[in-house]
Amino acid sequence: MTKERVVIAADHAGFDLKETLKQELQSMGAEVMDLGTNGPEAVDYPDFANALADVIGEGQITRGVLLCGSGIGASIAANRHRAVRAALCHDVESARMSRLHNDANVIVLGGRVTDASVAKACIRTFFSTEFEGGRHARRVAKMT
Amino acid sequence: MTKERVVIAADHAGFDLKETLKQELQSMGAEVMDLGTNGPEAVDYPDFANALADVIGEGQITRGVLLCGSGIGASIAANRHRAVRAALCHDVESARMSRLHNDANVIVLGGRVTDASVAKACIRTFFSTEFEGGRHARRVAKMT
Repeated sequence: MTKERVVIAADHAGFDLKETLKQELQSMGAEVMDLGTNGPEAVDYPDFANALADVIGEGQITRGVLLCGSGIGASIAANRHRAVRAALCHDVESARMSRLHNDANVIVLGGRVTDASVAKACIRTFFSTEFEGGRHARRVAKMT
Repeated sequence: MTKERVVIAADHAGFDLKETLKQELQSMGAEVMDLGTNGPEAVDYPDFANALADVIGEGQITRGVLLCGSGIGASIAANRHRAVRAALCHDVESARMSRLHNDANVIVLGGRVTDASVAKACIRTFFSTEFEGGRHARRVAKMT
């Protein structure tokens, strides 16, 4: 991928996977803005989802990676924000489809449910797959 | 579960699974409001997610089941609505966690990615698991 700025955030249950994926993004040539959390102490996942959504809403960074334990809470919170289309992914195929069909701009992964190796493959696919457009653009436009 | 009204909706890629889950909900004693789609013809998933969210927003029915091909588009669209906490689930454990920790009121399943037998087990778990409250209530309150 071309040099891209990517924002990443996680709660405590996603912290370890965030560290792994931050390195992976950097090895892919991305510049990473890390919003935390920065340790295993318990925090509230919506705080981190909202902070990531705010960065994307401001428009300087267009894509992100968001993590919590299951990915469910983070994906609910992030999709409250109109600038965000957050896709909870569990495998490379869902990461691919979320780009092809949904033009997702945030990939959500569960730190307690997805292995680091699978998660790394997911973000490589997510950041290298283009939106298909066409009939899918009409549908995406309805998610306002 | 006690007699409960449940709203269900799907796009064409979730239509077959919707029919299966509608029967399963009825066998669980639920009264089901079916918002369609009612056949395999292509439709736009946000239309059905938005219709389901509107029913829940009105407050007469508090919980729902929503389907598309991957579940990703439907979950993005549904979570745009503040009355909805839509959990994309792939297995019984995610369905359980979405109730315990996120107080999800809509379960989203992917008609092209989740077997009918797994989907049926997911909704049985979803509709029989209570929210844990406590620190999770504070986090849920932040998803406004």
